[in-house]
Amino acid sequence: MSQAPQDIEQLIGLMARLPGLGPRSARRAVLMLLKKRGTVMAPLARIMAEVAENAHNCQTCGNISGATTCEICSDDRRATGEICVVEDVADLWALERGQAFKGRYHVLGGTLSALDAIGPEQLRIPALVERVTSENAREVILALNATVDGQTTAHYIAEVLEGTGVSITSLAQGVPIGGELDYLDDGTIGAALRARRKF
Amino acid sequence: MSQAPQDIEQLIGLMARLPGLGPRSARRAVLMLLKKRGTVMAPLARIMAEVAENAHNCQTCGNISGATTCEICSDDRRATGEICVVEDVADLWALERGQAFKGRYHVLGGTLSALDAIGPEQLRIPALVERVTSENAREVILALNATVDGQTTAHYIAEVLEGTGVSITSLAQGVPIGGELDYLDDGTIGAALRARRKF
Repeated sequence: MSQAPQDIEQLIGLMARLPGLGPRSARRAVLMLLKKRGTVMAPLARIMAEVAENAHNCQTCGNISGATTCEICSDDRRATGEICVVEDVADLWALERGQAFKGRYHVLGGTLSALDAIGPEQLRIPALVERVTSENAREVILALNATVDGQTTAHYIAEVLEGTGVSITSLAQGVPIGGELDYLDDGTIGAALRARRKF
Repeated sequence: MSQAPQDIEQLIGLMARLPGLGPRSARRAVLMLLKKRGTVMAPLARIMAEVAENAHNCQTCGNISGATTCEICSDDRRATGEICVVEDVADLWALERGQAFKGRYHVLGGTLSALDAIGPEQLRIPALVERVTSENAREVILALNATVDGQTTAHYIAEVLEGTGVSITSLAQGVPIGGELDYLDDGTIGAALRARRKF
C-alpha cells in the first residue's frame, strides 16, 4: 500500500512538475491544500480549470489573453506604430509593470536554438515581418534578454527586417537603477562606459 | 491595466499561498502551466477539484481518505490493538513509508498550544481516550515530533490515559541511521548515551 491515497499521490506528482517545487515541497503544498480544502483548494482548482479553458495566445502578438485578440492589440490608443519584440509573456508582463511602453508587443515564445531545433518558423518571426508591413510599423524595439541566445535572435531579426525600412532599436545597456558598481560584472561596466552621455 | 489578465492574476495570488512558493515563483509556475495548458494545467485542475471534493478526514483516526473510514482503519489485519498517535497526516505518511508499523493511527491535527488556543478538544484527544477503551487497545505509541510542543502534548496524553491501563510507549531517541556524531546536537548524543544497549 502506498502512503497516501492514489489520487492524492497523483496530485503530488503533478504539483512536483511545477518549477520551484520538488517531490517533498509538492507533498507539503498538497497537505496544506488538504487542510484548507474549502478556502484554498476548491477555489484554486476552479480558477485553474477556468484559465486552462479560457486562456488563448493572441493571434496577433502571442500574448496570453481571454480572447483571440488580446487587450493590448485591441486597444486603439496603443496603435503607435511601435512593436516591442520579447521572448516570452513573462517579459511582456515585466515591461507592462514598468508602464513606460505605450505601443504593442510581439511575443516570440523563445529564442533561436540550433540544438533544440528551434528555427524562425517556431518563433513567429515570419508573422513579425508580416506585421511590420501590414501595420506600417515605424519602429521595432528588440527587448530580448541580454543572453547569448537572446542577442543571436535579435541579430537574426534585425537582418530579416533590413529590407522593410523599419527603424530597429534595442534596449539600452548600462548600470541598473540602484545598482552598485562594485557588484556589477565587467561587461556591464564596459557597456555603460561606452554608452556614456552628457550629465 | 494590470500586467496579466484578471483571472490569471487571481490564479497567481492563490498559488502564492502555497508553502514554498512566493509571488515571483508563483508567477513563474503559472507561466509554465499556461505553456502546458493541455498536458499539465487541465489535468492538475481536474485532479485537484476531484481531491478537494472527495477527500475526507477518516472519522476514526483523522487520516485523509476518499471514504469516511480510511483504508488503514478498515483493514482488519491492522486491528493489532496498537494505536500510533501522530501530530499530522504527513507524519502518518512518513511512518507508512517506513513500513515498520502494522497497527492503526490516531492523527491529532497539531499540538497543544496555549498561545493559539489549541486545547485537548481541538486535537481529538477525547476521541483517542474513547478509542483506547472501545477498541480494547493494548498499546498507545506516542510518535509525536521531538519538539517542545510535541513532547508537552505527549506528556499530557500519557497523563490522560493513565487510568485506562493501556501501555504507553514513545519512539526511541538516538543517533539516526547514517548520522555522524560530529554533526549531532548535544541533546541527541546525551539521549543516545543514556539509552545505550548491549552490542
